[in-house]
Amino acid sequence: MMQVKNESAEELIIHKVRSNDLAQVHDAVAVEEPLEISLAWQSEGKNNVKVISVTMRTPGHDPELATGFLFTEGIIKEKAVIKSAVAHSFAENKITVVLNDGYAPALQQTERNFYTTSSCGVCGKASIDAIKTVSAFKDNTDEILVDANVFYSLGEKLRAQQTTFNSTGGLHASALFDLRGNFISLREDVGRHNALDKIIGAALIEDKLPLSNSILLLSGRASFELVQKAMMAGIKIIAAIGAPSTLAVKAAEECGITLIGFLRSESFNIYSNKKRISVTKENTLA
Amino acid sequence: MMQVKNESAEELIIHKVRSNDLAQVHDAVAVEEPLEISLAWQSEGKNNVKVISVTMRTPGHDPELATGFLFTEGIIKEKAVIKSAVAHSFAENKITVVLNDGYAPALQQTERNFYTTSSCGVCGKASIDAIKTVSAFKDNTDEILVDANVFYSLGEKLRAQQTTFNSTGGLHASALFDLRGNFISLREDVGRHNALDKIIGAALIEDKLPLSNSILLLSGRASFELVQKAMMAGIKIIAAIGAPSTLAVKAAEECGITLIGFLRSESFNIYSNKKRISVTKENTLA
Repeated sequence: MMQVKNESAEELIIHKVRSNDLAQVHDAVAVEEPLEISLAWQSEGKNNVKVISVTMRTPGHDPELATGFLFTEGIIKEKAVIKSAVAHSFAENKITVVLNDGYAPALQQTERNFYTTSSCGVCGKASIDAIKTVSAFKDNTDEILVDANVFYSLGEKLRAQQTTFNSTGGLHASALFDLRGNFISLREDVGRHNALDKIIGAALIEDKLPLSNSILLLSGRASFELVQKAMMAGIKIIAAIGAPSTLAVKAAEECGITLIGFLRSESFNIYSNKKRISVTKENTLA
Repeated sequence: MMQVKNESAEELIIHKVRSNDLAQVHDAVAVEEPLEISLAWQSEGKNNVKVISVTMRTPGHDPELATGFLFTEGIIKEKAVIKSAVAHSFAENKITVVLNDGYAPALQQTERNFYTTSSCGVCGKASIDAIKTVSAFKDNTDEILVDANVFYSLGEKLRAQQTTFNSTGGLHASALFDLRGNFISLREDVGRHNALDKIIGAALIEDKLPLSNSILLLSGRASFELVQKAMMAGIKIIAAIGAPSTLAVKAAEECGITLIGFLRSESFNIYSNKKRISVTKENTLA
């Protein structure tokens, strides 16, 4: 039996039932704990601290998660606003991102939360318009063309890297690959949005944004929220193992993102911006 | 090709790629749209309206979703506080739950959000303690005993009912079964928490709470949030097709809930409160 001892998996004693047999066994379970994300900044000589969010996450890469979350939600715009140290007290599940002097967070974003504008009410169209207004990167990557064959091996490469998922079955993953399908990085979390925030936060910290020359692979389904976060990081190609939602497809279409779903080892669906995918034979599928 | 025309699925024209072949096809995709949930109530002769949440959901059963959400978050305590009509404007993705005169919502719950208490900081233990204090129903169901064989057929029964998932591959489901494994009800949504809020909201509206004589089946993984919501509805047995998280297991343990994971047609794992599951042969599994 595989034994995992780290902060992202915990070994529990459980009962395993098969037909009418039962036994006690040790089993690795994905860790879920709350993380309170706060922002600290100075304005007019006054120190400000504000709790921005409490998210249920898998411990590990918390500074990446916090900075990634603040960035993909539009609250901080660039790495330069972040002071070198990110205060972090793991034991208390609290993290504070400290801004450099002279920078104030865009806190109105936490209230709008991308979903609603006062002018036109609540609708998918308004949600898409809202994210387009806060996007940091221009679309200048129409020249990208990726061969369909690059995608077929991504799922297998993802599974090879998903060590905690392999032991617990309980974690979502976001992974980055280059345009030839070479693995770059992976983050896992019980929350799919956290896995994506972690990988984008890591790229922000390492000055690797925008991610316009990377393929983002999602282990599960593609929702609006994930497309929105990917767009904030300048990602132009998203491939999901699972299904997309309508609003994910529409957001990807309008934001110039190529969205692939149901990625398998021999097939996939393209839901938007097919222009970036090269396929040998077109219109021949029955 | 299956054609689905309803509010929970939409037909899009997509590109299907297989090896190096490509073709345009029609494909059903799960609908995702925002829903703004508001509360309206009177206090001291004054009318109050407050936006409580914006959730990305699959349209359908919105009144159930709104009331279920308000109930499982501890903001409304019982059906009696809800005025007969739930104002609902589908076209605008807005819904307002109107309270009867004399009732005020427990809005401090929206701020605490179950995850944190001022005394002990942010931790899983605090999260569990917080949900225990707001639980509406007493644990009086220790006499329940369900044969292991009841569970093996639940997955198949769920799939038979998941019509929109079957066409889109994109929806989570929550389903209720009686203690003999007979199907009671099902709700689907792009958000797993929404599917659960819908099914609990329906039970609240139909005066069927607590659900202490039902088995809750989850189509995916079991997180803390789902265990918390189930506990608010008095559910005592949760079976998930997917994996649980550590905090889901601990919350279930402390709240007296039997939590089953990795439910298959011939096996499953019991993570907490095994007392309610009857297995013919114990401790014989290799």
